[in-house]
Amino acid sequence: MFEKKYDVIVVGGGHAGAEAAAAAANLGSRTLLVTMNLQTIGQMSCNPAMGGIAKGQIVREIDALGGYSGFVTDKSAIQFKMLNKSKGPAMWSPRAQNDRMRFAEEWRLALEQTPNLDFYQEMAIGLLVKGNKVVGVRTSLGLEIEADAVVLTNGTFLNGLIHIGEKQFGGGRAGERAATGITEELVDLGFDTGRMKTGTPPRVDGRSLDYDVMIPQPGDDIPERFSYLETPKLTLQRDCHMTRTSAEVHNLLREGFDRSPMFNGRIKSIGPRYCPSIEDKINRFADKDSHQIFVEPEGWNTVEVYVNGFSTSLPEDVQYQALKKVKGFENVKFFRPGYAIEYDYFPPTQLKHTLETKLVENLFFAGQINGTTGYEEAASQGLMAGINAHLKLKEEAPFILKRDEAYIGVLIDDLITKGTEEPYRMFTSRAEYRTLLRQDNADLRLTPRGYELGLASEERMRRMEDKHNKAKSFVDFFKKTSFDPVKVNTILDNVGSAKVTQSDKMFKVFSRPKVKMEHMLELESVSNYVTENQLDTEILEQAEIQVKYSGYIEKEKNNADKLHRLENVKIPENFDYSKLKSLSYEAREKLEQIRPVTISQASRISGVSPADISVLLVFLGR
Amino acid sequence: MFEKKYDVIVVGGGHAGAEAAAAAANLGSRTLLVTMNLQTIGQMSCNPAMGGIAKGQIVREIDALGGYSGFVTDKSAIQFKMLNKSKGPAMWSPRAQNDRMRFAEEWRLALEQTPNLDFYQEMAIGLLVKGNKVVGVRTSLGLEIEADAVVLTNGTFLNGLIHIGEKQFGGGRAGERAATGITEELVDLGFDTGRMKTGTPPRVDGRSLDYDVMIPQPGDDIPERFSYLETPKLTLQRDCHMTRTSAEVHNLLREGFDRSPMFNGRIKSIGPRYCPSIEDKINRFADKDSHQIFVEPEGWNTVEVYVNGFSTSLPEDVQYQALKKVKGFENVKFFRPGYAIEYDYFPPTQLKHTLETKLVENLFFAGQINGTTGYEEAASQGLMAGINAHLKLKEEAPFILKRDEAYIGVLIDDLITKGTEEPYRMFTSRAEYRTLLRQDNADLRLTPRGYELGLASEERMRRMEDKHNKAKSFVDFFKKTSFDPVKVNTILDNVGSAKVTQSDKMFKVFSRPKVKMEHMLELESVSNYVTENQLDTEILEQAEIQVKYSGYIEKEKNNADKLHRLENVKIPENFDYSKLKSLSYEAREKLEQIRPVTISQASRISGVSPADISVLLVFLGR
Ligand SMILES: Cc1cc2nc3c(=O)[nH]c(=O)nc-3n(C[C@H](O)[C@H](O)[C@H](O)COP(=O)(O)OP(=O)(O)OC[C@H]3O[C@@H](n4cnc5c(N)ncnc54)[C@H](O)[C@@H]3O)c2cc1C
Ligand SMILES: Cc1cc2nc3c(=O)[nH]c(=O)nc-3n(C[C@H](O)[C@H](O)[C@H](O)COP(=O)(O)OP(=O)(O)OC[C@H]3O[C@@H](n4cnc5c(N)ncnc54)[C@H](O)[C@@H]3O)c2cc1C
Repeated sequence: MFEKKYDVIVVGGGHAGAEAAAAAANLGSRTLLVTMNLQTIGQMSCNPAMGGIAKGQIVREIDALGGYSGFVTDKSAIQFKMLNKSKGPAMWSPRAQNDRMRFAEEWRLALEQTPNLDFYQEMAIGLLVKGNKVVGVRTSLGLEIEADAVVLTNGTFLNGLIHIGEKQFGGGRAGERAATGITEELVDLGFDTGRMKTGTPPRVDGRSLDYDVMIPQPGDDIPERFSYLETPKLTLQRDCHMTRTSAEVHNLLREGFDRSPMFNGRIKSIGPRYCPSIEDKINRFADKDSHQIFVEPEGWNTVEVYVNGFSTSLPEDVQYQALKKVKGFENVKFFRPGYAIEYDYFPPTQLKHTLETKLVENLFFAGQINGTTGYEEAASQGLMAGINAHLKLKEEAPFILKRDEAYIGVLIDDLITKGTEEPYRMFTSRAEYRTLLRQDNADLRLTPRGYELGLASEERMRRMEDKHNKAKSFVDFFKKTSFDPVKVNTILDNVGSAKVTQSDKMFKVFSRPKVKMEHMLELESVSNYVTENQLDTEILEQAEIQVKYSGYIEKEKNNADKLHRLENVKIPENFDYSKLKSLSYEAREKLEQIRPVTISQASRISGVSPADISVLLVFLGR
Repeated sequence: MFEKKYDVIVVGGGHAGAEAAAAAANLGSRTLLVTMNLQTIGQMSCNPAMGGIAKGQIVREIDALGGYSGFVTDKSAIQFKMLNKSKGPAMWSPRAQNDRMRFAEEWRLALEQTPNLDFYQEMAIGLLVKGNKVVGVRTSLGLEIEADAVVLTNGTFLNGLIHIGEKQFGGGRAGERAATGITEELVDLGFDTGRMKTGTPPRVDGRSLDYDVMIPQPGDDIPERFSYLETPKLTLQRDCHMTRTSAEVHNLLREGFDRSPMFNGRIKSIGPRYCPSIEDKINRFADKDSHQIFVEPEGWNTVEVYVNGFSTSLPEDVQYQALKKVKGFENVKFFRPGYAIEYDYFPPTQLKHTLETKLVENLFFAGQINGTTGYEEAASQGLMAGINAHLKLKEEAPFILKRDEAYIGVLIDDLITKGTEEPYRMFTSRAEYRTLLRQDNADLRLTPRGYELGLASEERMRRMEDKHNKAKSFVDFFKKTSFDPVKVNTILDNVGSAKVTQSDKMFKVFSRPKVKMEHMLELESVSNYVTENQLDTEILEQAEIQVKYSGYIEKEKNNADKLHRLENVKIPENFDYSKLKSLSYEAREKLEQIRPVTISQASRISGVSPADISVLLVFLGR
């Protein structure tokens, strides 16, 4: 049925698989997306939202490189918010609330518009492997589909087991069946595997809630967008709402703890520490008698509501009795209870930076299968795996993002270098150079790279350059132009900053903490410049950040440069660590297992101390 | 979790379940829809189209009564066609091509807007029965949800088994799991059960087809709508296309016959004779070396295509090799192969006219579970079961449509009286009074009944009355108004009809076969009447039918009246047929099993002869 051999087969149409398929196909690889149900492509398994702290940055990075998650989100958004706007720009994080059905539909339609991409609905149950190379997949019907590279993005489906209270049943997601076969084959091929778990809250009927007693959480007055392209602007938005649990709610939940699969030992695998279930929160923070609950609409028109913050796998009657005591939920009606799911993952230290497995050539893993959690984390890995699968087949240099280039770089480097014992999610704190890795400059950082690959379009590149040039000229304008002390002192007086005694370059006062772009615009020459050059808010914001944070940015750039020097110290591929007797035992073991490519990567492996690094450096003649 | 008892629980969110839930809830019953996946409500399992011959009439009847299928179809239509327009109006049959995703979404949203209707996502695996009364359902989590009445609409899911070539696996539909438990419990309760099968064609990638060599099948120039309400009019439509199989295609398919589950005995159950698989067609019509294939788009934007006419469960490689030889399909790419599915049904002679089971009180069956096939057949049963479940609980008279009132009446009467050995679908030939049961007058026939029930809205009733009055006045105008022979003779001459010699009522010439409304409109008095009374095309059409077919209509009404006399001869509920020794053995057996309510129903039971009916009539004192 598949006469020609494909270049790339992507297994799974979740966030990782969808990005992987789009990337490989757009780069020119003949690509086949094999997924269990073509109607669930791009399905959001959990909350109907994209982005958030550190995750929003990732979505913008995906977009800047030419991935789809950004514009799919924009086209299906029902609310947009820039989080952390009161903090420094490194912390600003875009987040959108989405129409769940529309999101999946936009994904499906976007993929259908992608050249070189074919679709096939079936479960892949095994791999075709020749020597140590993957050469295709085997399906549940027994079809063998050949390909030069395979990207596995099975998400939470591999031997998925759903838990609610004392009951458990196979499934990859509520109402969908689990995928079997793949894990067993990979284990036979020599892969390590483990179990992780995650959970989701009940879905309820919005008509049964009393919103009047909750606090509305509207979107931004002037909603922005994820994509650097010209996606539609939100003119209408839907509110979320906030309410809280109480001691009474917690007590009711506690009554079910002995029947909880989390506490009675039935679930042994580890869940995401930072998206804990409500029972976890009560348990870990026993002194807190209230937690926030965000009530999120599932779409433009539907009455279905997502109860963010109330993820649980307690028995359904316990869920119900407790949720009923939450303010506004007195008459709540369930669409379905919350549940936890356990699934197989593969410790990502078995991967190279390209997400290719070390054991089997041309086999790539991306998404939750690598022990991560979250749509954004999954999507970005998919994008990178899709790109690298293509490049590998074309015998071109791999595409790797460094830790100072992108959150995506941090994510993948963390995964393959440190592995992860619990579902890995991104945080700003994981990025050493977060002042560089902002949501506002993902295009400046990454679009040239995506363009060079052939993934980011001409249009993207043109828009990026335009933004870059305009912002740079504007910053130069501040650097070159002197101010009139009298006018500037009125401004400084107003914002409560010390007056100046003589004229100087505008850059100087603009750098002061209390002086904002809005104040600078009070100067006629500045506002004239803006009008003459037709600068929009994006440019104003960009220039402001470049002026006001230039110090921090410079410092981080210098630090990154230092890192790059270590990065340049390559470790030979088959380096024999056993020769280095002065390495600690633990370091030798980890180094042998992970086989870092550079000294810099070696230094990030947990268990490898600075002393070990010195030993390595000496040996390598540095 | 469900504190209050529901009035009605509907199990299954297919076409039957969705209509049942809407009807019961709209009538005022507190209703719960329990379905395995809330994202697949109103899913079209097979072709993305509603209506067609006899089926289109059913959709209009559902709409006239206040059901949802009509407007859901209109809102998601991508093409509309009135079939059989060249034949008499009894044969006119509306048909719409639909956007599959949009159709399901419109269903979901419409149900969400329905008062008294709650939703719950889970598999029902059993019934709660007390004495011989149903009192609720049991779910896979072990929840017991109480209700006074239960409507089962499990479709093709009960122990569903999917076949492709030599492979078989459990499932209710491709990618969805089967439902278990219910059949076994019903059998324990004493129900007879059987197996049926149906099939579906491969879905393919529209980008891989060559439409230039196919024949476009556009929609009507002036597309109509299903609903009698003011649903949006189609301004844009998508074409279907037609192509044909060939001897070569048939030969290739035949090569797989020994691996076909249909021919090698693996599938024993009977499929729908009138929606046969392509292998069935080749087998049964061995002399025909070409069959039509309709290439139907699955939606507005998607590239997915439905290959109508190529339903098959042959091995997937055989499907592929053969389809590739169909004109325009040379480079076809599969989204997924066709398959057959076997499932449990319950012979419908176990039901009353209300669709309540005879064995268990307040338990109703509707849809494919009753041995029917088709969305329309399912939806209409759902509507009737929902209505009757409500009425039963309110201790009101049941709502039963007679064979001269609606196709729905024919359908249900056929099912419960004759049973069905193969998947039952509606045909115009099944209706004795099809001249009465037209698509154009479903509102006139049924909206008053729906209104009386409280299901059809005020608005519907007003629109129907308006149409009724305007059409009636217009017909009266033709009856009362005399024509000018000179003017009329010009018209008669033009259409090739014999001239008149003197003036007479317009009705007389209009009744002539060749004279159409368009000709009558050439008479100034007629066109003035139309303008003055602002008559739209619907009224013109209605009046035309009433004038031109008045003879047939009158005759059928008389026949129906005769039937009603037999209909009035009731048979006592516990009538002891064993006393009537002169009944044939077969008649006695069937009568005891089916227990007809009237002599008329008895006469329709196969195996009951006119002689048997005479015996009964004599005994009942007629
Ligand atoms: C119950 C639940 C709760 C969650 N809670 C959170 C949370 O609180 N916070 C958070 O950030 N994230 C959460 N997630 C995780 C989030 O949904 C995932 O991180 C993200 O969807 C992973 O994307 P993915 O592409 O790796 O896999 P998925 O989105 O799971 O997609 C996998 C896809 O692969 C297909 N597939 C799998 N196996 C096969 C096969 N063998 N053959 C063919 N197709 C196959 C599936 O049909 C599916 O389309 C939760 C997920 C679940 C299920
Ligand atoms: C493969 C295939 C091919 C077909 N081919 C044709 C054709 O050629 N021509 C034609 O006219 N018709 C065809 N049909 C039939 C058509 O799809 C059905 O007649 C119609 O959908 C029946 O509607 P329904 O409401 O009875 O059941 P369905 O549409 O099957 O819906 C059943 C619903 O009940 C839910 N459900 C089932 N069991 C449970 C449970 N225990 N608990 C909770 N929920 C449950 C399911 O999730 C589903 O939502 C085909 C169907 C299939 C599957």
